[in-house]
Amino acid sequence: MPEILTRPITTPAAQRAARRSAAGRAAWRSPLVSLTTDFGARDPSAAICRGVILQIAPRARVLDISHEVEKYSVLDAALLLWCALPYLPLGVHLAVVDPGVGTERLAVGIETARGDLLVGPDNGLLRPAAERLGGIRAAHVLENPDYRLPALSASFHGRDVFAPAAAHLALGVPLADFGRPIDPAALVPLELPVPLVRPGLLETEIVYVDTFGNLKLAGGSSDLAAAVGPLQPGLSLTVSCSNVAGTVDRVEGLVEEQVPWATTFASVPVGRPLLYEDSYGRLCWADNQGNLAARLGLRRGCRVSVRRA
Amino acid sequence: MPEILTRPITTPAAQRAARRSAAGRAAWRSPLVSLTTDFGARDPSAAICRGVILQIAPRARVLDISHEVEKYSVLDAALLLWCALPYLPLGVHLAVVDPGVGTERLAVGIETARGDLLVGPDNGLLRPAAERLGGIRAAHVLENPDYRLPALSASFHGRDVFAPAAAHLALGVPLADFGRPIDPAALVPLELPVPLVRPGLLETEIVYVDTFGNLKLAGGSSDLAAAVGPLQPGLSLTVSCSNVAGTVDRVEGLVEEQVPWATTFASVPVGRPLLYEDSYGRLCWADNQGNLAARLGLRRGCRVSVRRA
Amino acid sequence: MPEILTRPITTPAAQRAARRSAAGRAAWRSPLVSLTTDFGARDPSAAICRGVILQIAPRARVLDISHEVEKYSVLDAALLLWCALPYLPLGVHLAVVDPGVGTERLAVGIETARGDLLVGPDNGLLRPAAERLGGIRAAHVLENPDYRLPALSASFHGRDVFAPAAAHLALGVPLADFGRPIDPAALVPLELPVPLVRPGLLETEIVYVDTFGNLKLAGGSSDLAAAVGPLQPGLSLTVSCSNVAGTVDRVEGLVEEQVPWATTFASVPVGRPLLYEDSYGRLCWADNQGNLAARLGLRRGCRVSVRRA
Repeated sequence: MPEILTRPITTPAAQRAARRSAAGRAAWRSPLVSLTTDFGARDPSAAICRGVILQIAPRARVLDISHEVEKYSVLDAALLLWCALPYLPLGVHLAVVDPGVGTERLAVGIETARGDLLVGPDNGLLRPAAERLGGIRAAHVLENPDYRLPALSASFHGRDVFAPAAAHLALGVPLADFGRPIDPAALVPLELPVPLVRPGLLETEIVYVDTFGNLKLAGGSSDLAAAVGPLQPGLSLTVSCSNVAGTVDRVEGLVEEQVPWATTFASVPVGRPLLYEDSYGRLCWADNQGNLAARLGLRRGCRVSVRRA
Repeated sequence: MPEILTRPITTPAAQRAARRSAAGRAAWRSPLVSLTTDFGARDPSAAICRGVILQIAPRARVLDISHEVEKYSVLDAALLLWCALPYLPLGVHLAVVDPGVGTERLAVGIETARGDLLVGPDNGLLRPAAERLGGIRAAHVLENPDYRLPALSASFHGRDVFAPAAAHLALGVPLADFGRPIDPAALVPLELPVPLVRPGLLETEIVYVDTFGNLKLAGGSSDLAAAVGPLQPGLSLTVSCSNVAGTVDRVEGLVEEQVPWATTFASVPVGRPLLYEDSYGRLCWADNQGNLAARLGLRRGCRVSVRRA
Repeated sequence: MPEILTRPITTPAAQRAARRSAAGRAAWRSPLVSLTTDFGARDPSAAICRGVILQIAPRARVLDISHEVEKYSVLDAALLLWCALPYLPLGVHLAVVDPGVGTERLAVGIETARGDLLVGPDNGLLRPAAERLGGIRAAHVLENPDYRLPALSASFHGRDVFAPAAAHLALGVPLADFGRPIDPAALVPLELPVPLVRPGLLETEIVYVDTFGNLKLAGGSSDLAAAVGPLQPGLSLTVSCSNVAGTVDRVEGLVEEQVPWATTFASVPVGRPLLYEDSYGRLCWADNQGNLAARLGLRRGCRVSVRRA
């Protein structure tokens, strides 16, 4: 997806429409602000962030990515942003999964090479998406009280710090006005799980369970091919996984099944498993029209090995 | 609801407001695009569709109908659209429940008599709503690569095909530019459950369980009246249902209770059941301020019979 | 939070931006309409309300506060509005938790001192938020058929009465045009739980369980200090609670633990409980990065007592 990584999606027709009318230009007067949090859809927190943004930047268009990030999971949010941001318009992207709220952890704003502005706690949350948008061009600490709410709580910086920062960035306040620059290399890193390519064996793990029960694995088809050789549709693979968080070395509770390499769900009968490359380029283990995670009791963090059957 | 079927909702005050100011005209420069999917609110998929739409058509107003359609259930999505679309503004309506993604199933765009444009897989999903909006005026296959994302995945056509199509339609690209016309009669049909009127007995089934646990049944009050005679508030009815998917002929697990015909919930005490015509004209069996589906363990597909007590 | 109570949030930069460009003025041509209901995100009901609003007031910006209010719970919705509305822009705020739909209960519109317009059933739902926005300036019954949908159902006034009223208010129709005035003192009251300050003991109750499992209690830190004396970070408190709805006098199922008074989550180790003042000024009992409600089996309505350890 190299094009999407470095510049926004467009098409000839969209470009013509933008040139022909004021609509395209007008879009830039209505800056996009996206939100990604673990606040949940029931609580008022996400709406309060939207409200604060719209009070400060009334023309902003707010787009919710997800408020159902796994509670406290920086990794989960980081993967959601990694998936989503390349497909969103240039904009300000606010992300809050913040178990360290009220501590010395920094609040940061990041400018990416694509031109987006990312806002959130400095806990690694923003880094994979920033890399995917071309890398970090600048980072600043969000410490200027002019761009915070007047009263700062100890437990809801989404409302008091991050939403106001995002809104002021959407108004065009330069990132440098928010506080001192910070060396991108000094930002808190995030270790994304990576697969281990062994002769004849790929060792990986479940990084995300989607709402269909599909299991997203660390690594892509090239990793699997490096381990087991060329991947033809129908190639039979043996997938092993502990049914509790743990290693595949544990025998008790080991799940093992034959799974074909396939291009899409309908390549196998309804209810049967397949291994395929998902639409983001990741390995994915799924049941056609079923819920694999529920069928096998698997969850994020379970280690998975794949070899030829 | 004949008026709603054939033209958008309006009121004298809304019409005056539209005439008086530029607001009404401006609305048409901000086309509405609605989304209905089984993607779930947690995953990034729905936000990615919104992002793709806004990249291509920055002035579009995106309205989410639901992303919690029962996974893989074309019928569930079709009923949601049937309920919702008559109350939405004229617009482009995108719906994706797509178990056949990556197969030969067609992607289609449909123009309705009301003037809406419906976009989705050709699996029957769009047909009940299209009928309710006055019928199908034209249908075209969505196959022009100019109106798709440059890279086409095998498992996420919501992002790669349907969202770009909806966005281009919102930009004003004519439906005919997307691909060859298709005879409406050749679109994949969808069989909606229908009630069976017998002397003294209505045989129907649960077509939708709402989040209150209310059970929406196939058919309306005229069907019930045809079976059991005039419906007066307070008329006592016997409702029978198998508590597993199956027929009412099965004795084991049969649920049977006396239920009054009523006009609204408060006609019966809190916690007690009633049968009424819901706000869409459908028969509905519910508990006042309770959760009937949970109380009796009933779900979509259960067959229900109703007779005079 | 006195400033927020009486006037909208703003900042010097936001004010300059508003003066400098047409953006600020334009915002007032795009009135904000917020929605709070117990309709659930799966059902089409919330989208239908959005659709009706946008048909009548095409320039409105619709902001969802929550559609996951506890079913039928007027108190739950009232607390959500109390939290959220001070942080939202001036606007029209629609709230529907309406177990009395179809009865003689009134539909009301309320103008607050801050300038907002609140719309909903007259069941107490709107009152705590109205007080927090400076009090009620005027209230009118929503009975003018010109501002309703032409056909009025007996079970979905969100669609037929409240959404059209909110949309017409957003268009600028004066509240007085909707129906006869009603004395604010005659509106149905809502009793919010209040804590009882005893010598050395605060008796309170759980008023809201958030999606993190944090337990919001009736009362603030000043109530607790009045009962147990000055609150220093680290002060050890004994919190007692029945693990079923009931009183703390019941011995069976009594939960009791030592909990420190703290300023934020990270003041205690991961998984450990704390008592703190939440970002709305309420007492809150929580586990750092855990789910206290799940750990102890507690829910809304459970009575809680707090004393020095």
